[in-house]
Amino acid sequence: MASRAWADRVLQLLRGMNSFYSAGSRRSQCLPFEVDGVQVGWVPLLVASQLETYAEVFSVSRGGAVSLSPRLNSYESRSEAVDVVLQTLRRQALFSCLRGWRDEKYSVMARFCDPPLMWMERAATSLFGVKRYGVHINAYTVSTSGELSMWLARRSATKQTYPGLLDNMAAGGLAAGVSVKHTAVKECEEEACVPASLANKAVPVSTVSYTYEDEEGVFAESQFVFDLELPQDFRPAVGDGEVQEFYLLPITEVQQLLATDDFKPNSAMVVLDFLIRHSFIHPDTEPLYQDFVTGLHQQL
Amino acid sequence: MASRAWADRVLQLLRGMNSFYSAGSRRSQCLPFEVDGVQVGWVPLLVASQLETYAEVFSVSRGGAVSLSPRLNSYESRSEAVDVVLQTLRRQALFSCLRGWRDEKYSVMARFCDPPLMWMERAATSLFGVKRYGVHINAYTVSTSGELSMWLARRSATKQTYPGLLDNMAAGGLAAGVSVKHTAVKECEEEACVPASLANKAVPVSTVSYTYEDEEGVFAESQFVFDLELPQDFRPAVGDGEVQEFYLLPITEVQQLLATDDFKPNSAMVVLDFLIRHSFIHPDTEPLYQDFVTGLHQQL
Repeated sequence: MASRAWADRVLQLLRGMNSFYSAGSRRSQCLPFEVDGVQVGWVPLLVASQLETYAEVFSVSRGGAVSLSPRLNSYESRSEAVDVVLQTLRRQALFSCLRGWRDEKYSVMARFCDPPLMWMERAATSLFGVKRYGVHINAYTVSTSGELSMWLARRSATKQTYPGLLDNMAAGGLAAGVSVKHTAVKECEEEACVPASLANKAVPVSTVSYTYEDEEGVFAESQFVFDLELPQDFRPAVGDGEVQEFYLLPITEVQQLLATDDFKPNSAMVVLDFLIRHSFIHPDTEPLYQDFVTGLHQQL
Repeated sequence: MASRAWADRVLQLLRGMNSFYSAGSRRSQCLPFEVDGVQVGWVPLLVASQLETYAEVFSVSRGGAVSLSPRLNSYESRSEAVDVVLQTLRRQALFSCLRGWRDEKYSVMARFCDPPLMWMERAATSLFGVKRYGVHINAYTVSTSGELSMWLARRSATKQTYPGLLDNMAAGGLAAGVSVKHTAVKECEEEACVPASLANKAVPVSTVSYTYEDEEGVFAESQFVFDLELPQDFRPAVGDGEVQEFYLLPITEVQQLLATDDFKPNSAMVVLDFLIRHSFIHPDTEPLYQDFVTGLHQQL
């Protein structure tokens, strides 16, 4: 059983990750971002005022929404016109998030089930509050006596985001046009040297979704969660350099760690979801059980 | 893989179960219900106008909230004073939900983790939109070849609510002061004659939460979900008469059934949550995967 301090810290984590829709957020200082008449994100006013200077691409409607020029009426034309502006903004170095330019195309749509309206460079999505999707893999082992341990990654000290923090064994963003399962298997292979034959055993079990804001914009994200039971004698190995080390830890230790500043916040949520689904947290001993579950699965 | 018609029907179910916080709901015709200065529910205007006639117990504040007389400053005094009014309303037969009076005391609190402020008769909770908690048990078997089947109950034709519909093997409301696990085990014993030694193997895995409205009021509910793997040779049996029959069905058949009018709606949500956690639904073949997960876990 975890302490109250642990539980309070977890609740604080969930509230932080859902800050955008909480009272007192900067949502009132954001404009809806609309493509083809459909809201697909939120643009901070500071960003909107920059975008307005590219009047052939962006405009702010009378209703106060940022939208694209009506002549941009196709997936390709929208994507390319916006990308040209973003490349310019990148060169101007006005927005720090664009320093993390990755040449990764993310699909832009109102909901995951909708056809994409355009693509956008991953590093720019927070400027538009566009929903981002990814995969996270809980890799674990079960000993012959039934004890569960989880593989954690220590992120490389040179990662752009959250350097040096603990993370799930593998995770990655969902690029436009790539399947969820394929992304999960690819990340296991690339980041942790898990052969595809093993990584293919990863099973989809949940999503973890949240919307937070920081000085770089609005982060509306949903992570498709996979569980992957690994053989006890298998060890992940550092692959593409995104990870510096892997640890196999007893699940109780992982539970303690997720509530520390040493853990990447959304990955801590993925572990919390694992702990709930695998009955390591009980509603009779954890009064915040219900708050934890709803906090993990907020509407985007 | 399920059909689009199936998925659309499931989305419709989730939207219906979350109707209270959707656009166009009757929320604007409800007043907050406050106890000790804390909102613990929603009272429809029609109900509020009746309550106002009991001025020694209820009042409508200038801010438009229904609250209790300040002299009712303890758990017992609040509970008893409200119960007297509710007994009177029951005799007057003004509200059909009170015909289902059960003599079951539910705890009233803003959040599950808070100390209860009073108790209230279960049948009256929808008049106040007070949050209700319960347990639902997914009972299933796994064959030697790994095939999963689920036990479903057919509710008795004489049940007050949802007579004759399909349901989880066992379920029940959480009475004031009773633990979640104890309730789960008790319901398995009473409704399905599962001996405690077996029922104790039920493990907590999730909550399913939603708020809907109908002509009887506001239903803000969270169900603590348990999974219980039963031995293949065990058969639940009709216990206290709440169930007429039990069926063991292949999980694919259960999946189809949950999207029909033959299934109790909140129990269908519990099965949907099971299907997601046990990887019977995949994000690459079910575009509504993300909508399903968030629709199952709405903030109360």
